[in-house]
Amino acid sequence: MKHLILASQSPRRRQLLTEVGLTFQVQSVSTEETYPKTMPLSEIATYIAKGKAVALWNTLNTPTQDQSVVLASDTIVVSNGQVLGKPKDTNEATAFLRLLSGGVHEVITGVYLLSATGHQHFSVTTKVYFRELTEEQIDYYIRQYQPFDKAGGYAIQEWIGMVGIEKIEGDYNNVVGLPVGAVVEALKIFCPDIDGLV
Amino acid sequence: MKHLILASQSPRRRQLLTEVGLTFQVQSVSTEETYPKTMPLSEIATYIAKGKAVALWNTLNTPTQDQSVVLASDTIVVSNGQVLGKPKDTNEATAFLRLLSGGVHEVITGVYLLSATGHQHFSVTTKVYFRELTEEQIDYYIRQYQPFDKAGGYAIQEWIGMVGIEKIEGDYNNVVGLPVGAVVEALKIFCPDIDGLV
Repeated sequence: MKHLILASQSPRRRQLLTEVGLTFQVQSVSTEETYPKTMPLSEIATYIAKGKAVALWNTLNTPTQDQSVVLASDTIVVSNGQVLGKPKDTNEATAFLRLLSGGVHEVITGVYLLSATGHQHFSVTTKVYFRELTEEQIDYYIRQYQPFDKAGGYAIQEWIGMVGIEKIEGDYNNVVGLPVGAVVEALKIFCPDIDGLV
Repeated sequence: MKHLILASQSPRRRQLLTEVGLTFQVQSVSTEETYPKTMPLSEIATYIAKGKAVALWNTLNTPTQDQSVVLASDTIVVSNGQVLGKPKDTNEATAFLRLLSGGVHEVITGVYLLSATGHQHFSVTTKVYFRELTEEQIDYYIRQYQPFDKAGGYAIQEWIGMVGIEKIEGDYNNVVGLPVGAVVEALKIFCPDIDGLV
């Protein structure tokens, strides 16, 4: 039986994988989350996820590699053709939320699975429609929640997501940080003897 | 300042209202959740919500009524024109999940706000797309989660929702049990001095 290794430090991804009943270890290596400037937006998240998976894979010794499946993912937020990363300060978080207010944007998560016998990758896109946010709501959220570790400057499961998001089209957990249903489906094909699959 | 009273025993609705920062009391009275057989499907949830709001309102004395806003809601699941209630046993829960498997259904929540100065109501619909579920998944979920208190026989935030739901169109929290963002928007207009609104 192979063991799953989650190549991520995100507590949200860890929680989602735990909630679907999978048994896994967490390991991560720091990678540069850069991509070619000419890369199509739809490929960026998968490209970065591959970089994380390969970097972690290269830290494993051969016996561990033979017994492991590495799962890496990356989530980006795209608004009007612009990729929004993690806001570096309050000013940038405010600018991001003003940009997202009253409009639709895309959350794209790329997933990369890697084992000694092969690899598989896919991405999942969810459209998110924000209500018009007031300046007071934006200020309150940033002050209370400090969303500087969140791509796009918000988390759907926090206050701003609950009051500010009118609707989504796609997978909710993808916006939280991992399209965990699609991950389970992929694991069933890629490595059906992983512990915890039903 | 008026006080909000949630006319519901649902722990999920209570949690959603708490998470958006509203201060409220919980009270409930038992009502018959029936509706005229000829009623359009889109009106049923609001009709039942009104019944709950009015029943609770009638238990309040006049000074309390003057200081209160009652919030009641009801959620129904509609699949191919058929309303699915709470499954009465394992057999019915199995039948519901087989019906929902591989298809799309609607979750409709009706909300009714009532105060001494008036009332307001609306409903929110979310489309939910299930993957094809295996018999093993259906059996596992019902055995582990006993979803007999859930309209339609499932909860989106539980295991079956995470692995089985491919996508939704609409508000996620509406499927959990209360379209809490729309409730906040309505309260801002209906009773803007409620404690906790930003």
